Amino acid sequence: MEKILAGVHKFRRSVYPRDRQFFQQLSEKDQKPKALFITCSDSRVDPNLITQTEPGDLFLVRNAGNLVPPYAGIASGEAATIEYSIEVLGIKNIIVCGHSQCGAMRGLLNPQIAENLPAVKMWFNHAETTRRIVKNKYQNLAPQELIVAATEENVLVQLNNLSTHPAVAARLSAGEVRIFGWYYDIGSGCISQFDQQQGRFVELGAQAYATAPLPIRTNDETTSAVS
Amino acid sequence: MEKILAGVHKFRRSVYPRDRQFFQQLSEKDQKPKALFITCSDSRVDPNLITQTEPGDLFLVRNAGNLVPPYAGIASGEAATIEYSIEVLGIKNIIVCGHSQCGAMRGLLNPQIAENLPAVKMWFNHAETTRRIVKNKYQNLAPQELIVAATEENVLVQLNNLSTHPAVAARLSAGEVRIFGWYYDIGSGCISQFDQQQGRFVELGAQAYATAPLPIRTNDETTSAVS
Amino acid sequence: MEKILAGVHKFRRSVYPRDRQFFQQLSEKDQKPKALFITCSDSRVDPNLITQTEPGDLFLVRNAGNLVPPYAGIASGEAATIEYSIEVLGIKNIIVCGHSQCGAMRGLLNPQIAENLPAVKMWFNHAETTRRIVKNKYQNLAPQELIVAATEENVLVQLNNLSTHPAVAARLSAGEVRIFGWYYDIGSGCISQFDQQQGRFVELGAQAYATAPLPIRTNDETTSAVS
Amino acid sequence: MEKILAGVHKFRRSVYPRDRQFFQQLSEKDQKPKALFITCSDSRVDPNLITQTEPGDLFLVRNAGNLVPPYAGIASGEAATIEYSIEVLGIKNIIVCGHSQCGAMRGLLNPQIAENLPAVKMWFNHAETTRRIVKNKYQNLAPQELIVAATEENVLVQLNNLSTHPAVAARLSAGEVRIFGWYYDIGSGCISQFDQQQGRFVELGAQAYATAPLPIRTNDETTSAVS
Amino acid sequence: MEKILAGVHKFRRSVYPRDRQFFQQLSEKDQKPKALFITCSDSRVDPNLITQTEPGDLFLVRNAGNLVPPYAGIASGEAATIEYSIEVLGIKNIIVCGHSQCGAMRGLLNPQIAENLPAVKMWFNHAETTRRIVKNKYQNLAPQELIVAATEENVLVQLNNLSTHPAVAARLSAGEVRIFGWYYDIGSGCISQFDQQQGRFVELGAQAYATAPLPIRTNDETTSAVS
Amino acid sequence: MEKILAGVHKFRRSVYPRDRQFFQQLSEKDQKPKALFITCSDSRVDPNLITQTEPGDLFLVRNAGNLVPPYAGIASGEAATIEYSIEVLGIKNIIVCGHSQCGAMRGLLNPQIAENLPAVKMWFNHAETTRRIVKNKYQNLAPQELIVAATEENVLVQLNNLSTHPAVAARLSAGEVRIFGWYYDIGSGCISQFDQQQGRFVELGAQAYATAPLPIRTNDETTSAVS
Ligand SMILES: [Zn+2]
Ligand SMILES: [Zn+2]
Ligand SMILES: [Zn+2]
Ligand SMILES: [Zn+2]
Ligand SMILES: [Zn+2]
Ligand SMILES: [Zn+2]
Repeated sequence: MEKILAGVHKFRRSVYPRDRQFFQQLSEKDQKPKALFITCSDSRVDPNLITQTEPGDLFLVRNAGNLVPPYAGIASGEAATIEYSIEVLGIKNIIVCGHSQCGAMRGLLNPQIAENLPAVKMWFNHAETTRRIVKNKYQNLAPQELIVAATEENVLVQLNNLSTHPAVAARLSAGEVRIFGWYYDIGSGCISQFDQQQGRFVELGAQAYATAPLPIRTNDETTSAVS
Repeated sequence: MEKILAGVHKFRRSVYPRDRQFFQQLSEKDQKPKALFITCSDSRVDPNLITQTEPGDLFLVRNAGNLVPPYAGIASGEAATIEYSIEVLGIKNIIVCGHSQCGAMRGLLNPQIAENLPAVKMWFNHAETTRRIVKNKYQNLAPQELIVAATEENVLVQLNNLSTHPAVAARLSAGEVRIFGWYYDIGSGCISQFDQQQGRFVELGAQAYATAPLPIRTNDETTSAVS
Repeated sequence: MEKILAGVHKFRRSVYPRDRQFFQQLSEKDQKPKALFITCSDSRVDPNLITQTEPGDLFLVRNAGNLVPPYAGIASGEAATIEYSIEVLGIKNIIVCGHSQCGAMRGLLNPQIAENLPAVKMWFNHAETTRRIVKNKYQNLAPQELIVAATEENVLVQLNNLSTHPAVAARLSAGEVRIFGWYYDIGSGCISQFDQQQGRFVELGAQAYATAPLPIRTNDETTSAVS
Repeated sequence: MEKILAGVHKFRRSVYPRDRQFFQQLSEKDQKPKALFITCSDSRVDPNLITQTEPGDLFLVRNAGNLVPPYAGIASGEAATIEYSIEVLGIKNIIVCGHSQCGAMRGLLNPQIAENLPAVKMWFNHAETTRRIVKNKYQNLAPQELIVAATEENVLVQLNNLSTHPAVAARLSAGEVRIFGWYYDIGSGCISQFDQQQGRFVELGAQAYATAPLPIRTNDETTSAVS
Repeated sequence: MEKILAGVHKFRRSVYPRDRQFFQQLSEKDQKPKALFITCSDSRVDPNLITQTEPGDLFLVRNAGNLVPPYAGIASGEAATIEYSIEVLGIKNIIVCGHSQCGAMRGLLNPQIAENLPAVKMWFNHAETTRRIVKNKYQNLAPQELIVAATEENVLVQLNNLSTHPAVAARLSAGEVRIFGWYYDIGSGCISQFDQQQGRFVELGAQAYATAPLPIRTNDETTSAVS
Repeated sequence: MEKILAGVHKFRRSVYPRDRQFFQQLSEKDQKPKALFITCSDSRVDPNLITQTEPGDLFLVRNAGNLVPPYAGIASGEAATIEYSIEVLGIKNIIVCGHSQCGAMRGLLNPQIAENLPAVKMWFNHAETTRRIVKNKYQNLAPQELIVAATEENVLVQLNNLSTHPAVAARLSAGEVRIFGWYYDIGSGCISQFDQQQGRFVELGAQAYATAPLPIRTNDETTSAVS
């Protein structure tokens, strides 16, 4: 806690004064974030750092495993925040971002970890699809690769869950929202995005990708999307 | 989206290489975050910035309004992430941080905003206590002050909800976890913490505060409890 | 009730004796249905009639509006029956079939119908996405066309919900299950199937269609997913 | 799938044209079904066949085990469809129909079948009463008889659950709705109905029974129930 | 609070000493209550007083309106306490007791009372059947009579809900548990019990009634149903 | 049942006539109870006896273990009754009272007791915090002492859950409601109350205690409470 409190002190005395005007302007008008960014609670993942963005750019949902419960008419922080971001803030881009060395994914693949964690166990219901896909398709992988596969498949599963939310689905269908699946490799700093054409995650490098993996609908419908 | 993709590019080419070793080490050992930080999804709130911390320091939960549903034996991202942070990561400090100009608090006080947002409306059940406290105690405040009062009261309400989670309550009772209520004023850069002695939020400044607002009883009180 | 009881009588005396052997064989071995058929409760829709199939061919789920609640870790007849059909019966084809003149769709578009029907109102949560898509995309349609559009969109929405069920998703991802969206026009006897290539429902006629609208990605795409 | 698609073809070319007028009339006026028929998803059970009825006669609910969750203020396809059938369609007769060789009943009595089927396991909560009655009363039966007893008792249990639905209960209390418990033996073609007077299922034969079964029943009535 | 604290004082100083031995024996062996008594929270209803029983005799469930949510696989104090009373304590008699001047029943019939009471409103879902029966059958009654009718019908509705609990239903079916519906008129001191034969509540007077009431309706009522 | 019916008879013939006027007055005006008393279903606990109060004095909630589910926007008898007592009856004092030899607490500490009691098991979720506190802090206690410690800690846990209910929290925050934790020892007749100053339960004896253990808030705010 000392480091954190010292950091607050430093922010207040050294950082804030440098950008006083920026912060004052931030506080004076409503936020207009460029994307809703849904990622894991993992302390090693800093969305503003890896996208080199500033306060005001990313609207954030963070929970263990970057899970998105499907829309089921039940109170959920994820459902509310997604709905709010689209209907109130007018969000047009949603990124679901998994990451390497994810403890939640490790827990998902090793049920004994969550044995005495009832809340975690229930939460993993929303990644049960991930667990079964991994069990079905990747039996031959080594543990290290298995967790990468699980994390990538989980991003796709959560994108699909995301597409059951009325606010998202209605806009997807009208081509007014785009959804992206990302994977962040902490050690190598590599960020990749699911590419529907290639059916795999591709590094976000020189060219900026902007194709949305729209669930179910055809190209025709989506071509006019949010250009 | 262009700004975000350009930022990823910049991170990958300029930022990561500078700290390559740091990131590689991050990825090689399990995270050991210093605190669980529960705050709003608001794009203007950057926890790492205001605490001047680095990747690896803060385990994060973010949702609209920094709400913490009480423990009710129901699947919830908040419950799972809290349980995971304490039981698996050994978290010892939990901060619930509200902020100025919070859209969720504005929505809470102006129900017509959430009229057609069923997911948001259900989510606000977990801040219904806040709404009633505000209605009861602060009828005379101007709109500007009202939202500050609501946000501060909401932090206390969520701390109380937090203390219903078994993992938290058991550690609170044993003095092994501390919980803190913060308020971040975006425009002035001021971060304040609820001080139980004074019964109000006090700026975190020169001296570092570290007193935990333990709900119901303090360590001393409970040690002799059943003797 | 008299007609029904007379029908039972007739079945017992005239119909059963003709096919005694068939029924006895049916009862002697486990069912091996060719598809899971999810359709509306509407009395005018007879799946065995429109597919000219016999007892033993179609495993059936029927409810108002042929809705499929997404998988949410909550008890539901639909979730259980889907899971059972795949994991126990080895079902490989799932058809979600909407129909013309659907009272549920009419109720969905005219909320006053369900005003005093709390159970129906809650149930329509699972078609809220349909309602919003229709509101967004088809404002200019005449009432007659609107209900056709709603019913077709609803089939796609429910296919998407279907794909959140772990048993379905794992098999979809492995290419072991196919899901189909149908629309049955009662008056004309026309049955059409959603064609992903064309992005619209196409009459099932001379040629038998068998392309599955796989949500999010195709087989090809996923095989190479984590290589 | 080929058989099904061929069947659609046959329906469209040979069956529909014969009854074109009937189908057109069906589509032109609202349905007026004679009963709500709640039965199992089992592919071998064809309600229109065993009651020799036509499109327009039976409003159908079908799920694994013909279960009826009691009314609990929770979204459920069964609750919604029941409410709709009574309040909108004016249904006056409800039949709950179990059947021989029911896989759901077998699963209920052999919990290891549902071990890895979480959705099925939760669904069986609504037949937990059946399981306990069977365990209590029929320990001495051979497996073959046990499953018949379970299926019959389950029909009675679901009738009782049915009677907790406000739309049903209010009409039952006013004598405006009748509820019937049926058992269909696939191999012998025999359909029997629970007779409250006799406290057992009695074949629906020459005389048409129309007595409504009281849910729960007294001791006397139940002692001879499955003999 | 003063009256209550003075009462505690009086109990401790004057009442307890007189019966010290009785209380010590009570505490030394497990309770063996003679009945589970489910009644309203109303302060004017004292079950021990009106049955002239002593500590150790009645196991009690008390909530607003003496409601019994049907068994739905959901955590509920009522479900747990009922299950515990039967499976652990071996309870053989269950009484559901309504009372005159019941505020919960008044709230049920006058929805505006619960307008701003979300928890009460949701709770009344479990008496929605009562509300509809009353609306259907008793339109002509004066307000005073209406509330008596509602309270009596509600007792029957809750008996029916009670009979959906597996522990109850299995014992009812085996004749090992009896359930009774009571109505207590505070002003006249009259306690009546539902008599299935007569289809109405009958004063418990000289003769002790011990017949188990079938919930909801008598044979007479159903024979003439919807002819 | 005979004893109970004989008791009713006795009440009607001997007890009621003596206090006829009192009962008639009770029934003529709305109840104005002095406190909401939440205690265990245990047959040996008679709230009116131990507080020497009369009909009209105590509004009662009784369930196994005197648990108070936290407010979670879900239907619950406890939530509804608490809300009703405060908002409709104007209750100003709430007592949560545990007791010695509590079977629910024994079940909580010995999970094998609830092994086959699914409803009880789910209900104990609301005392999971108690279980973990006991496991953490009292490993060295003998079984007899352990259950006392569990019961006392459970009272505090439930007070905390109670404080998440909006109606309670809003009034607590305004000093308009007081909440008390009691422990009743059946064998010795001793009733003690949690004393926040001393951090332990203190016998309610000569002096009447009236200090409310307000969760979280400071003394300043509460000093003016409800005098
Ligand atoms: Zn992670
Ligand atoms: Zn905010
Ligand atoms: Zn329909
Ligand atoms: Zn079956
Ligand atoms: Zn009452
Ligand atoms: Zn107890």
